[in-house]
Amino acid sequence: MSRSGDQPVGALPFDVEDVGARALAAARLGVRGANPLVGAVIVDAAGRRIAVGHHRGAGTPHAEADALANLRADVESGRLDITDANPPGAWTMVVTLEPCHHTGRTGPCSHAIRDAGIGTVVYAVADSTDTASGGAAWLAAQGHRVIAGSALAPEWSRAAAQLNHRWFSARAAGRPFTTLHLAQTLDGRIAAADGTSQWITSTASRHHSHRVRARAEAIIVGSGTVAADNPRLTARLPDGSAAPRTPLRVVMGHRDVPEGAALVGDGHYRHVRSRDPRAVLAELASVGIDHAMIEGGASIATAFLREDLVDEIWLYQAPLVLGSGRGAVGDLGIDTLSAARRFEYDDVGDGALARCGDDVVLHLTPRAADHDTDTLMRR
Amino acid sequence: MSRSGDQPVGALPFDVEDVGARALAAARLGVRGANPLVGAVIVDAAGRRIAVGHHRGAGTPHAEADALANLRADVESGRLDITDANPPGAWTMVVTLEPCHHTGRTGPCSHAIRDAGIGTVVYAVADSTDTASGGAAWLAAQGHRVIAGSALAPEWSRAAAQLNHRWFSARAAGRPFTTLHLAQTLDGRIAAADGTSQWITSTASRHHSHRVRARAEAIIVGSGTVAADNPRLTARLPDGSAAPRTPLRVVMGHRDVPEGAALVGDGHYRHVRSRDPRAVLAELASVGIDHAMIEGGASIATAFLREDLVDEIWLYQAPLVLGSGRGAVGDLGIDTLSAARRFEYDDVGDGALARCGDDVVLHLTPRAADHDTDTLMRR
Repeated sequence: MSRSGDQPVGALPFDVEDVGARALAAARLGVRGANPLVGAVIVDAAGRRIAVGHHRGAGTPHAEADALANLRADVESGRLDITDANPPGAWTMVVTLEPCHHTGRTGPCSHAIRDAGIGTVVYAVADSTDTASGGAAWLAAQGHRVIAGSALAPEWSRAAAQLNHRWFSARAAGRPFTTLHLAQTLDGRIAAADGTSQWITSTASRHHSHRVRARAEAIIVGSGTVAADNPRLTARLPDGSAAPRTPLRVVMGHRDVPEGAALVGDGHYRHVRSRDPRAVLAELASVGIDHAMIEGGASIATAFLREDLVDEIWLYQAPLVLGSGRGAVGDLGIDTLSAARRFEYDDVGDGALARCGDDVVLHLTPRAADHDTDTLMRR
Repeated sequence: MSRSGDQPVGALPFDVEDVGARALAAARLGVRGANPLVGAVIVDAAGRRIAVGHHRGAGTPHAEADALANLRADVESGRLDITDANPPGAWTMVVTLEPCHHTGRTGPCSHAIRDAGIGTVVYAVADSTDTASGGAAWLAAQGHRVIAGSALAPEWSRAAAQLNHRWFSARAAGRPFTTLHLAQTLDGRIAAADGTSQWITSTASRHHSHRVRARAEAIIVGSGTVAADNPRLTARLPDGSAAPRTPLRVVMGHRDVPEGAALVGDGHYRHVRSRDPRAVLAELASVGIDHAMIEGGASIATAFLREDLVDEIWLYQAPLVLGSGRGAVGDLGIDTLSAARRFEYDDVGDGALARCGDDVVLHLTPRAADHDTDTLMRR
């Protein structure tokens, strides 16, 4: 009987919490949106980390494919020597989410791992989405050793679940992931008493928000804002030209969209005659939108916050004080401090806070309540 | 006739804008408050920068003395060799403010420069305060070459004036420099609808604000806040113990201070029965207070902002959204965007923005209008 038979199934030539933490750090380099944040590390039989990868957002390679591509590039360029790295069958892919088993804009990671011949896969969190799940079972059926991280490295598994907790809950609810854009004064105003609001924030902030906007598949704006401000809602590059892809413009509310409205332009818009954020998101989901940006005005922002349907916030804060005028957020039905909507500053991607021209830009995501993570872990 | 007689008076063996910029960068390492921000650089006859210094706040050495102390320390430790640096009479002290000529908590810089034998002094901005001015004239009378930077390096001089523009205007008005403390939610609230407000910000933010508070000579709070919250208003260290120096507690407003109020404790408090910020500051100036921190509540913060009597803001922003409740700032009589109070994020000292526990802390100072700087330059 071989020695390995005495070892527990999970015995691995490295510390899973350590390597898992490295994979999570890689995941945090990505951006939030249609896809979850995922990081992957490849470790050889000697415990050496030979590749790291992460997902950079919808339409780009998944973390597993990125790690494999980085490995190939490093070997081909001579930066990495794997002649004594033992065969791929002795390697382990440590990944923060179960490898996908679905062909979307990129091929299934399950196949990429099989093709690379990597013997062992350790994943932090199971992917329970209908379209992409099944990668673990398929790989096991192909003869790979596949290990769920929840028992092996519970802290890592929990942290990986928390990192994407809002993405998982959006998917579970069958709705797009949402990003709220807010641009306000220090005292939380988006317009002065006489209605003037252009421009509270600096050109640099508006460029930044165009960059964020270009990641989304849809931009939601209230019909009142369309009537008042007539925004174009294009995603423009800093030089003023259009970004390669312009998101679907979505007008929500009962007011008609004026025929000459700027956002009607190329016809790539949709009017949802509802003020109910759930109804709007359901309609967007039905046309395949996975990531929507909420642009305003205040009543739209308030409606999404009230229903706890904001998954990410980019807050541009101009160094102005108005003291009166329209607030960025209206009544949420919250009357005591302990019931406040709790977020956390989010250092994923571009970071939690930065100067942006004359302004600062703050990045937030809802804080995971313990029960949220527990629900994820039980799935 | 010597060759030097053909040179303009201002001819110096270095670029004044360059060295001046270095002195300004040093000045920015200090903290705002009772004293202006000042930086100094000593350059030898070969144009080598042999010392840099800056002022660290009331009670600590002035920038000129700091630069001289750094020079001595570097020479004594052997880090700097000045054997071929030519004699001090051939050196130049480049300083962002006219050297003081007054004995406060530290000796006059005019004497320190004379004692060090430094031949030339170039200063960016004249010190027009009654108590400290006269350093340039006295040094010139002692035979030093003394050059005002305004003609020689106008950009530098202008930047130096801007750096302290609020300190100069506070001094010109005979009032203390003021620091406003704000602690709010993302939507600018300081209490929920039911009045709950403890704690919106994290322990780390409260520690940070105690550190800022310990720099001030007085803390101003409204009599309504005393009645409602009964704050101690001590400056405490992170371990909970009292800071070495506790500022004077100042209660403003008409309501009586309850006999058992926590801030009455050691008797180091003062009740000013006025809601007029100018009257309160005048009374503080009359008892020698040069730097006051405005702690709140909202009506006090609003009163100071309305009168443009806020020279610095520390804003602690917790990642919460309330949607209703008490705003941090009330009506300022501003009805249109172009009339908003304009600040700028201020990287002086601790920097313009930072994570602080769960919160972010933002540092701001009023933006200098062009006419403010022009007034300073004409003085």
